[in-house]
Amino acid sequence: MAGGTRELQVELGERSYPIYIGTDLIAQAGELFLKHGLPVKSPILLVTDSSVVDLYADKVEASLGEAGYAVTTAVVPSGEASKCLEVLDELVGTALQAGLDRKSTVIALGGGVVGDLAGFVAASYMRGVRFVQMPTTILAHDSSVGGKVAVNHRLAKNIIGAFHQPEFVLYDLDTLASLPVREVRAGLSEVIKHGLIWNEQFVAWCDDNADKLLALDSDSLGYALYEGCKVKSIVVSRDERENDLRAILNLGHTIGHALEAVAGYGELLHGEAIAIGMVGSARLAARFGYSAEIAEETERIFAKFGLPVRIPDSCDTDGIMSAMLHDKKFSEGKMVFVVPTAIGSVEIRNDVPSSWVREIVDGLREGNERL
Amino acid sequence: MAGGTRELQVELGERSYPIYIGTDLIAQAGELFLKHGLPVKSPILLVTDSSVVDLYADKVEASLGEAGYAVTTAVVPSGEASKCLEVLDELVGTALQAGLDRKSTVIALGGGVVGDLAGFVAASYMRGVRFVQMPTTILAHDSSVGGKVAVNHRLAKNIIGAFHQPEFVLYDLDTLASLPVREVRAGLSEVIKHGLIWNEQFVAWCDDNADKLLALDSDSLGYALYEGCKVKSIVVSRDERENDLRAILNLGHTIGHALEAVAGYGELLHGEAIAIGMVGSARLAARFGYSAEIAEETERIFAKFGLPVRIPDSCDTDGIMSAMLHDKKFSEGKMVFVVPTAIGSVEIRNDVPSSWVREIVDGLREGNERL
Repeated sequence: MAGGTRELQVELGERSYPIYIGTDLIAQAGELFLKHGLPVKSPILLVTDSSVVDLYADKVEASLGEAGYAVTTAVVPSGEASKCLEVLDELVGTALQAGLDRKSTVIALGGGVVGDLAGFVAASYMRGVRFVQMPTTILAHDSSVGGKVAVNHRLAKNIIGAFHQPEFVLYDLDTLASLPVREVRAGLSEVIKHGLIWNEQFVAWCDDNADKLLALDSDSLGYALYEGCKVKSIVVSRDERENDLRAILNLGHTIGHALEAVAGYGELLHGEAIAIGMVGSARLAARFGYSAEIAEETERIFAKFGLPVRIPDSCDTDGIMSAMLHDKKFSEGKMVFVVPTAIGSVEIRNDVPSSWVREIVDGLREGNERL
Repeated sequence: MAGGTRELQVELGERSYPIYIGTDLIAQAGELFLKHGLPVKSPILLVTDSSVVDLYADKVEASLGEAGYAVTTAVVPSGEASKCLEVLDELVGTALQAGLDRKSTVIALGGGVVGDLAGFVAASYMRGVRFVQMPTTILAHDSSVGGKVAVNHRLAKNIIGAFHQPEFVLYDLDTLASLPVREVRAGLSEVIKHGLIWNEQFVAWCDDNADKLLALDSDSLGYALYEGCKVKSIVVSRDERENDLRAILNLGHTIGHALEAVAGYGELLHGEAIAIGMVGSARLAARFGYSAEIAEETERIFAKFGLPVRIPDSCDTDGIMSAMLHDKKFSEGKMVFVVPTAIGSVEIRNDVPSSWVREIVDGLREGNERL
């Protein structure tokens, strides 16, 4: 492995796997496949999207080809709309025609959409084959840890899926250079979230290094992704199947998912939606008697990273409330929220009155005129 | 539990579960749900098909309703065509609208198609909820053990799925009374298969009790299903994820699945197709030097149960061979077959020349004129 590569082990017993974070890693893909014992005789399906294919697919194919692997590349349209059963069906057809067998590997080369989609193909094809993730966005650092894979239903996001851990994650920082600035910001939103739920010092570090991170400085970015993945990895290791602790990772996601659904998938980026959601959660914290500074500080940091901290006027409150009722985070009719108790720690509340949520959603529209 | 109810524990560590086999069990469904700790507050989705709904759905709903459960019933068209992603999508929509949460249960009330389909809904809805099987066919005794659930792709059967174990299986023998005689025979084909792979005495017992079984005598049927489930349970307990041993359960299935695909799903019943396939496998055994009596005996027993033992003229050999190449049992290009070594035992051969298979397929058409 090249110097400067960071390696993080996600501890999940016999399903443990490493995340490699560094530069020029795609060139070593074939070597890593061999090192991890992925069988050369079984065809590989490389799933990528229309934005990524021309940038990196050739390099992945070349590296795997040199190592002796036969690779078939499937390209799906870029964007959330590809995370659906119709595209899953097409990919399974491609896998069958390429002769993928039970010892084959499916690779996700792309962002979170490609990871979730290809991951569910890997989880369900022949009832489960091997899976390797090659994230090409900052946001995907989140979905690359924990094995949650899924597609959307027209009524709800991520509702059809599985828990399916990868063999390893190859995080080539060079691929992040091509990201649009809006996606860089949205990706860093999820990185900061990991600090907000677990690690106050890391939030302070992100605050101090905002300029370097937004400028995609490799070493800073490598460190931030390592720390972000580490928080997620600790949480997931303690609760693989999302029975309790893992729910803290959903900070900002209840409001965030509802905003994405109401705005129309893709209008608000996921990282943007959850930034607004995290400000909302921090305001809920004040209702429960925690310091009002949590909300002020949360809002200040996200604004510093150029992220939205107000609900767009186009999303009406009734629509947002209704979308939340469909959200899977509501068990047995109660409203459940992850609420910060300080910067760097959270608790799960299952006693949140929906009237508070409605007031906070309304309040998150105030001040839109001055933004 | 009523007298005469048999209970078989499928041993799978923390995923172990019981199969209850007996008469008048549906009336006890609510009681069993409570006994197994299934939460009353979480809505239940009852999946059944157009042939079964009018016969038993009311009784299931009534029993669960008395115990305090809210049940939404979803009816899919009877037949293999319902085992597809489109129907999965509809069922997930129904589950969302009925408010199913992560503690909810999905019930399969029906045969193997409903079990596989509803099981994959349970495996993938919110990344997995609880599952209860209520088989209403003899054939479904097979799919009720082992947790293999799946839907079909237009290019291959059972290619999109999961391993998802039920909480328990409720096998009410009264529901078998409504089965058409052709389905009784086809179901017994899979029961006899379990004897052929593992238990010579049980094959002899089936042979001796063919009349009672075909007449649906409750006690004989209860015993046969118990023994059939027991063989499968032993095999699955030793190899839950189908790494090696579990493959022996596929006796007759390689040719059988190809026949189903070529004849068009539903033309040949699954049990009929595998009966022909098992005769083919027994003939392969003779090629490997095992006694020719295995094939004669296999053919005699299936014929005694009124099952087909020859390939219909409508299925041409090229089509059958081509369908087998798409079958997931072929890993890395080799032809793998389960081959009997005697009545009651089998071995897995991965060295079967495709020319032998072709000759046997051709040979299984001879004598059609006299049948």
